[in-house]
Amino acid sequence: MTDEYFMQLALKQAEQAFEEDEIPIGAVVVQQHKVIARGYNMTEKLNDPTAHAEMIALTSAFGHLGAKYLPDATLYVTVEPCVMCAGALYWSKLSRVVWGASDPKNGFSRVQPGISPFHPKTAVTTGVLEAECAALMKAFFMNKR
Amino acid sequence: MTDEYFMQLALKQAEQAFEEDEIPIGAVVVQQHKVIARGYNMTEKLNDPTAHAEMIALTSAFGHLGAKYLPDATLYVTVEPCVMCAGALYWSKLSRVVWGASDPKNGFSRVQPGISPFHPKTAVTTGVLEAECAALMKAFFMNKR
Repeated sequence: MTDEYFMQLALKQAEQAFEEDEIPIGAVVVQQHKVIARGYNMTEKLNDPTAHAEMIALTSAFGHLGAKYLPDATLYVTVEPCVMCAGALYWSKLSRVVWGASDPKNGFSRVQPGISPFHPKTAVTTGVLEAECAALMKAFFMNKR
Repeated sequence: MTDEYFMQLALKQAEQAFEEDEIPIGAVVVQQHKVIARGYNMTEKLNDPTAHAEMIALTSAFGHLGAKYLPDATLYVTVEPCVMCAGALYWSKLSRVVWGASDPKNGFSRVQPGISPFHPKTAVTTGVLEAECAALMKAFFMNKR
């Protein structure tokens, strides 16, 4: 199965967020070609600005595996992680992180230019289904203005 | 009530972590001179490397207030926040963050030298009960070696 396949599943999570009037970002955690955890942004529903898709998916993955680290897992997320989520991904020591659209406003790379916040063992892939991931964000914020 | 008073309460949380064989870091969130949330590091107990004292205390504070932001609150934490927690504090838009000991290994300032990860409205105070906060960490890691 391809990165595009799993990013489609992350997009489904993001669409669920959109339907619930949350900023539409979704994530899945994959290990051995199987989705082991999902998450979508729930900051409004939970009244918690830390309830990002990645945080929810990571905590679910730790719970599923009963393990504190994810050396064999890949996290797919529709939008570039923020500083907090990048820090959480560092702690998870996961094998790989893949995102779709960049986030020029809140992405870690804007705040930390030139610094990789991830664990040295974590590979990074960007731009997977970038247009679809970005379009969903754009549609959300168009509705808001 | 002084910063030292509230840092003592954060230290109590850290001591609880120590007793549970967790890296001894504790935090409290204070608003109008009252503690509205507490947290201590639970990464081992929860098998979750994101279960830091600050994350737990912040999420508890959002729940307590039913609010997504903490513009009138101060978070006291015994040790300098990591990148993830600094990012979470950014999202919380809290009034003030106070920590005791610096963390030359995992503190955000080592990873992001010269970059303030906090919200522009968040004031920062460091070094409150620094010796006590650092001594508890040192005692913990001495036990481990």
